[in-house]
Amino acid sequence: MSRHAAQPLPGSSRDVRPNLGILLRQLGQEVVRRVSTGLAEAGFDDVRPAHTAVFQHIQADGSRLTDLAERAQITKQSMGYLVDHLERCGYLERRADPADRRATLICLTEHGWDEIKTALAIIAAVEQEWETQLGAQRLQQLRELLTELGAASSTD
Amino acid sequence: MSRHAAQPLPGSSRDVRPNLGILLRQLGQEVVRRVSTGLAEAGFDDVRPAHTAVFQHIQADGSRLTDLAERAQITKQSMGYLVDHLERCGYLERRADPADRRATLICLTEHGWDEIKTALAIIAAVEQEWETQLGAQRLQQLRELLTELGAASSTD
Repeated sequence: MSRHAAQPLPGSSRDVRPNLGILLRQLGQEVVRRVSTGLAEAGFDDVRPAHTAVFQHIQADGSRLTDLAERAQITKQSMGYLVDHLERCGYLERRADPADRRATLICLTEHGWDEIKTALAIIAAVEQEWETQLGAQRLQQLRELLTELGAASSTD
Repeated sequence: MSRHAAQPLPGSSRDVRPNLGILLRQLGQEVVRRVSTGLAEAGFDDVRPAHTAVFQHIQADGSRLTDLAERAQITKQSMGYLVDHLERCGYLERRADPADRRATLICLTEHGWDEIKTALAIIAAVEQEWETQLGAQRLQQLRELLTELGAASSTD
């Protein structure tokens, strides 16, 4: 991540301190990188970092493409491309929406669920490392600060 | 954000506590949402949340498409789509790479730089709000914890 951290936003040259938005995104991306590497090692080698957005946002009973794109903050075209790939690789399947037969739901297959379980185990291992690094108390502090800001922004 | 927070990863139903990866990404996405709304209010209404990935990762002296995609953790196709849109809207222009005339660099225009300055001002305002909410000391704590984890992961 140093390569990214060493190259700040072009507009931020007057402000060496990286802003919190960047810090959050960089660390979030680091988790994604770790998940992606761990998945490849576990045999899920057709999942790239971009695809984690699908697994993060898909609902247990299926999601519409538009909802997935909105939640992941990417365009519908980009999400369609990711979903097509994961469908071809057996992680997802398209089904008619029981609530509206003309609409299509994107659903996890068994293989997709296996991927998610593996990804969660990798994230738990990253948290464990962070706990070793910061100590349990400071990691808990981090969790509380993030949760507090997240909860506040949900009431805006 | 509450809508997202209330619908956890499908695999995490046994673990109500959201993992740190999700917390980081959600809060990072909240900043992106704020930036996107603020940009629209400031007249940059052709920039959607997905496009912030381009402005975050582009270098002051221009970037190659492949580098942009890798840093943003999206596919090259998706990045190409975002860049095409921003080029049409006057934020970016393609130039021959002085180091390799056959290669193309994607560069910010004056309008692109204006967008970045506006985005940084919006992020500064979000940080100001967070400081009011948490207090200066706890916000500093958050910054330190994130920086410490970010610095450690860069040495992996």
